[in-house]
Order: sequence, then structure tokens, then C-alpha cells
Amino acid sequence: MAGIELKDRSFTCTAPVNIAVIKYWGKRNEELILPINSSLSVTLHQNELRAKTMITLSSSFDEDQMWLNDKEEDISNPRIQRCLREIRRLATKTCSIDPSYLEGHVQIRSENNFPTAAGLASSAAGYACLVYCLSQVYGLKDVDISVIARQGSGSACRSVYGGFVSWEKGEREDGEDSIAEQVCPDMHWPDLQVLILVVSEQKKTVSSTSGMRTSVETSSLINFRANNVVPARMDEMKQAIKEKDFSTFATLTMKDSNQFHAVCLDSYPPIMYMNDASKYIVQLVTAYNLLYSSPRLAYTFDAGPNAVLFTPGGNIGEILGLVQHYLPPNPGAENYIRGVSAGQAVPPTPSKTTINGIGLLPWKPGSLQYIIHTRVGPGPMTI
Amino acid sequence: MAGIELKDRSFTCTAPVNIAVIKYWGKRNEELILPINSSLSVTLHQNELRAKTMITLSSSFDEDQMWLNDKEEDISNPRIQRCLREIRRLATKTCSIDPSYLEGHVQIRSENNFPTAAGLASSAAGYACLVYCLSQVYGLKDVDISVIARQGSGSACRSVYGGFVSWEKGEREDGEDSIAEQVCPDMHWPDLQVLILVVSEQKKTVSSTSGMRTSVETSSLINFRANNVVPARMDEMKQAIKEKDFSTFATLTMKDSNQFHAVCLDSYPPIMYMNDASKYIVQLVTAYNLLYSSPRLAYTFDAGPNAVLFTPGGNIGEILGLVQHYLPPNPGAENYIRGVSAGQAVPPTPSKTTINGIGLLPWKPGSLQYIIHTRVGPGPMTI
Repeated sequence: MAGIELKDRSFTCTAPVNIAVIKYWGKRNEELILPINSSLSVTLHQNELRAKTMITLSSSFDEDQMWLNDKEEDISNPRIQRCLREIRRLATKTCSIDPSYLEGHVQIRSENNFPTAAGLASSAAGYACLVYCLSQVYGLKDVDISVIARQGSGSACRSVYGGFVSWEKGEREDGEDSIAEQVCPDMHWPDLQVLILVVSEQKKTVSSTSGMRTSVETSSLINFRANNVVPARMDEMKQAIKEKDFSTFATLTMKDSNQFHAVCLDSYPPIMYMNDASKYIVQLVTAYNLLYSSPRLAYTFDAGPNAVLFTPGGNIGEILGLVQHYLPPNPGAENYIRGVSAGQAVPPTPSKTTINGIGLLPWKPGSLQYIIHTRVGPGPMTI
Repeated sequence: MAGIELKDRSFTCTAPVNIAVIKYWGKRNEELILPINSSLSVTLHQNELRAKTMITLSSSFDEDQMWLNDKEEDISNPRIQRCLREIRRLATKTCSIDPSYLEGHVQIRSENNFPTAAGLASSAAGYACLVYCLSQVYGLKDVDISVIARQGSGSACRSVYGGFVSWEKGEREDGEDSIAEQVCPDMHWPDLQVLILVVSEQKKTVSSTSGMRTSVETSSLINFRANNVVPARMDEMKQAIKEKDFSTFATLTMKDSNQFHAVCLDSYPPIMYMNDASKYIVQLVTAYNLLYSSPRLAYTFDAGPNAVLFTPGGNIGEILGLVQHYLPPNPGAENYIRGVSAGQAVPPTPSKTTINGIGLLPWKPGSLQYIIHTRVGPGPMTI
């Protein structure tokens, strides 16, 4: 590089978390992270949950380095290496940057604005942010980065878009057609509200990677789900989102969450992510919807006990009251409701009619750590 | 009946509980109680769990009457009526008894020797006992009563035999080929031990009848299970029992329990019979088997949180110690271990190696009400 004076290139980007409403579970190729079925997610707003990554590319760095929440991480992690290699390959191929930069190294600093202990899909946001920010650093402004993000963490490919995002499983063996696509942007359905119910004593005993492997190897039902159930659900879900048909959206979301956990349970040894608090939330949502004879509230659970609820905006006060009544905080607990409704008036206690209709006893105080109120949000951005 | 002097006919019979290791879930005909898949069960010993029924047939009774645990029951219950009608039809057809008896009425007194609150399949034993005792009273000594017992409660048909019993689903619309068959008698595998872990706070929120209906109507996976998974499992299970191959028996038993609960969870709204204590038992059994690199212990769960464990006799001391260590009784609790091992020496605490290998923390005391130690047992009998 003698004689070349290259300015350091530095970008800071953020990327969102996404929550699947048609679940991804099972890889057909572990190396390339290719799924056995398509999936569909809602991108959550970055005000409440986001990964933030600053990357500097410099010819003066001797090696690539990475810090996560100020702690240096081992960058030799094969998934990170694959993302770096793919971005550099694409930069070389498209001549997106002065070739001399390709001999430089990067320093990557990443952090989350949400509790990492709570198991809230930090790897999806993290890898989407890493790949998006790398694409900025390497001048890859108009390319589909979902294929690269996918190779960091499967569901990360869905975090490269805002709004409602499908991940089409693809057919090709090299995975080039296993890409994310935006179904509708975040402003398409501004009314949709999201509550994350963070359950206490979170312990994810089985990682998604190893859980999926166990399920693919041992479940008798997983292929039937992938081949015969999910394709129709993908079509129905896209239609429901396009039409803002909450009833269909809610029913499919709940059914698909149930089926994902059913496949986990059908694995051997069985994988059980939901606990008694999760079960109670399912019963509460079911009773509430029964009371109104139509779905006003939907739940979904990822690979852990935390619930994510969806509801149209008009119900949000009632539902915050419902959750706070049936899943009360520990006495004196602060910041029980976070995000959009944080610090607002105490939500109303459910009416006697509602309480009689629901017919459940409130859960013991402190079973939920806290509630995050958020909304559908945009995709990665440079700040 | 003028001029005829008929002696009262009175019989007292007992019948066993059975626990399915290939589960029955879903009816193809609700009226005739015809299942969508075959199932297979182990008959438990009547020393620990049995129904007992005394029936008197007399020309002096004005009507049929029934008492359950000394409380008069409404005998107009359609399932009881169907059993009575079918037995009388068979008695008429086969001339098994003096025709004048067919104009008499019965008094039925039934009781269980086990806690009815614990949800331990009392209806299977109860209907098997009712139909067996009726068959004695009406002189039907050598007929297959499983078809009639089935119409009282599906799984009752498996309680009309001891040992290992299959219920073949049958193909006919009238259900005449939906019958129970003994795979092996109880003395075939005398070594097999059974532990029933009665979990606290039992509340069966969804009856089997309504749960099955929900699953048949809403689960996307139930028919795949019934048509593509169960038939092969039935064959494998019969073979394992014939060969006393505990490893295969245990693996299939656990897989089928998992899959039954997976289908329940895939129903809408989802049915969730297992709770955190059940999950803990699954983890304990899984860790224990992993420690020995082969299945020494198997679990199965019916439509409730209680576990039934199977193990070869040689392990029983170690396993009682394991259960008592990881699921301890409330301090001062009496009769924690009932049945075969009741009142025997306190089982040994697991060794340090076992405890380190299992890597679970003991559950909070009193999460189990008690443990029933029993064995494989014989079918109904007259006493």
C-alpha cells in the first residue's frame, strides 16, 4: 500500500429486532443456514430494541477486531468471518470501493439498547446491524444484504427490512435464493401495537441452533409442518397483513407459535421453551378473545418463555390494564411498563364483567420482570 | 313375571387402570367412541389401583340404580345406558341367561381404592369393571366385552385385559372391529416396575373428550400422526414388549408421550396438560438416561401433569432415591412412597457422581403429592 493515502472510513448504524409470526425452525443446510421452511416476521421499533454498530475501516489497523458491549469478542467466530468474507467478496466483485481498502482491516464496536439477559433475539439485530454497517463501509449501497446476514444468523436476514418481512426459503443449494423480502413497510399498519412480556427467571437451556438440529433429526412432524402446513400459512399471512385483517393475522400467529412449540416437544429429547407463566399468558389471551368472540389480542413465543403480544391500537389501554391486573409487578417495582406507554397514567383495572368472564386467578406478583410496549418499525439505518 | 321365582344374581368384580404407552387421542366417531389411531397400554396392578363393582340383578327392583363411592349417580348417563343396553342385547342374542332375568333391574355399587382427585384414569377402570361385572351377572362368560367397554369410555376397552394390551382402531363403521387384544400377559415381563408421580395442584382444565374434539377439529398434525406415525410405532412397540427390550420400549414410550402433548399444543386453542413440575420430571429422566448412555427409565404423561415412570426392577432403589432427592416431600410428610415399596427402608441418596452428572437443582419440597410404586397386573376378576 506504499504511497497510497486512504482516509479511514467510519459508519455507525442501527438495526432492529424482528419477531417471527410464521416461525423458522429447522435448517436444511447448517453451513449456509438454509431453512426447511419459509418464515415471516414483524420488525420491531428501534426506539425500544435495537443493535448499534460502529465500524471503522483503516489501512492502519493490523487486524480485524470486534467489541460487543465494550468487551472484546473473538472475531474468529466462523459466522462473523463468513459475513466479513462475503462483504469483501461482493465489494471486490462490484468494485464498490477503492481496491486498496480491501487490504485494510476493520474495528467493529457493537452494543444493544435492551437487556441482553432477557433473550430478546439479540443475534438477529446484531448480525443485521453488522452486515448493514459493513455494506456501508464497503460502499455496497444498493445490494441485497439479506443473503449475507442470513449466514450470520438465520433470522438476521429478516432484520434487514422494516415492517413485515418474509424469508423465502429458496430452492438452490448455494442459498442465493434464500432471501428476505419486505411484504409491507412499517407505516402500512401503524395501528398495530406490540407488547413484550419478559418472564422471570429466563434460562434458555437449549440454543436455537442445537434445538433445530435435534428437531430436524428426531421430530416425526417437522417435515410435515415444513412441507404441508407452512406454505399455505405464508400465503394467508401475507394476505392478512396486506388487508390489515387483524383477526386472521392473530389466529395464524397463535397457531404457528403453538405448532413451533409442538414440533419442539415432538423432538427427542423434547425441547420445552414455554413454562407455567407462558402457559398462563396463553390462557389469559385465549379467555380474553373468547370474551369478545373474536381475536383482539395475539401471542407468539420464540425459543424461550417470553411472550410477544399484538393488538390493534384501540385496545392497548384495556390490555395493559389486563396484563398488569393478571400478572402484577412485585410491590414497589419501578418501570414495570417500558417503551411507548412508559410513565403514562396507570392502566385501568379490568371491569368486573371482564374479570368474571376471564375466570382466571391473577398470577403471583413478580412473575413478569417487565413489559415493553413497542410498535412496528423501520429497517437498519445509518446515524 | 308372575309365577316365576328367580334368585337374585349378585357378583363383585374388580378391574385395573391402564396407562397408554402409545396414546389414544382423537375419535373418528364420537357416538361409538371409535379412535383415529390404534393405541397400546400397560395394565397396572390392582393392589395399588383398581375399581370394584358389585352388581345385583333382581326381579324385585323397580329400576336400574347406581352408586359411585356410596353416592347415587344418575344412571341415565348415555354411556352407562349404552353399556347396559349392549350387555342385555348380547344376553338376549346368545341366550346366556334365563330370559325372565332380562325384565329385572340392576343395582350397581362401584368404588375405587385410589384417590379420585388425582386424575388417575378412573373412568377406564370404572367402565371396564362395570362391563365385566355386568357380563358376569348376565352370564356372558366367554365373549369379547372390549367392544362394549369401549362405548363406556374409549380407554376402558384396554382395561378388560391384564398385561400389555393393544386397542386396534378397526375399519368398520359400526366399530365391531375396534377391539382390545392382549399383546402379552402380565407375567410375561415381571421385572418391569411402575412409579406414578402424583404432581400437586392437579386441575384438569380440559376433559379428554372435549380436548380430543378440539384436536381433531383444529390440529394440522393430528392426522399425520394417526396415519403415518402411529402404525409403525404400534408394530415396534409390540415387538419391544415381546422381546422385553426395555431400551426400545422406553424410547418409544417417551417419544409417543411427547407427540401426544405436541398434538395437544398444536390444537387451537392449545391444550397444555403438562406443567413446570412435569417438565422438570422430563428433564430429570433425560439427564439420568444420558448419564448411563441408555434408557434405564421412561416417562409418560396422560391428559394431566402426573408422570408414570417405567424401569426394570434392578434400578428401582436407585430411582426411588433419585425421585426423593430431586422431588423431595414436604418436611414431615408421611406415606410419600406408597404401594410396593411403602414402609421400606429410606431409598439411598444419589451418589455425588450421579448428582454432578444430572446437573439439576432439586425441585421445591412438596411439588409431588406422593409416589405410587406398582407393577404390571392382571385383568378384571370376580371376587
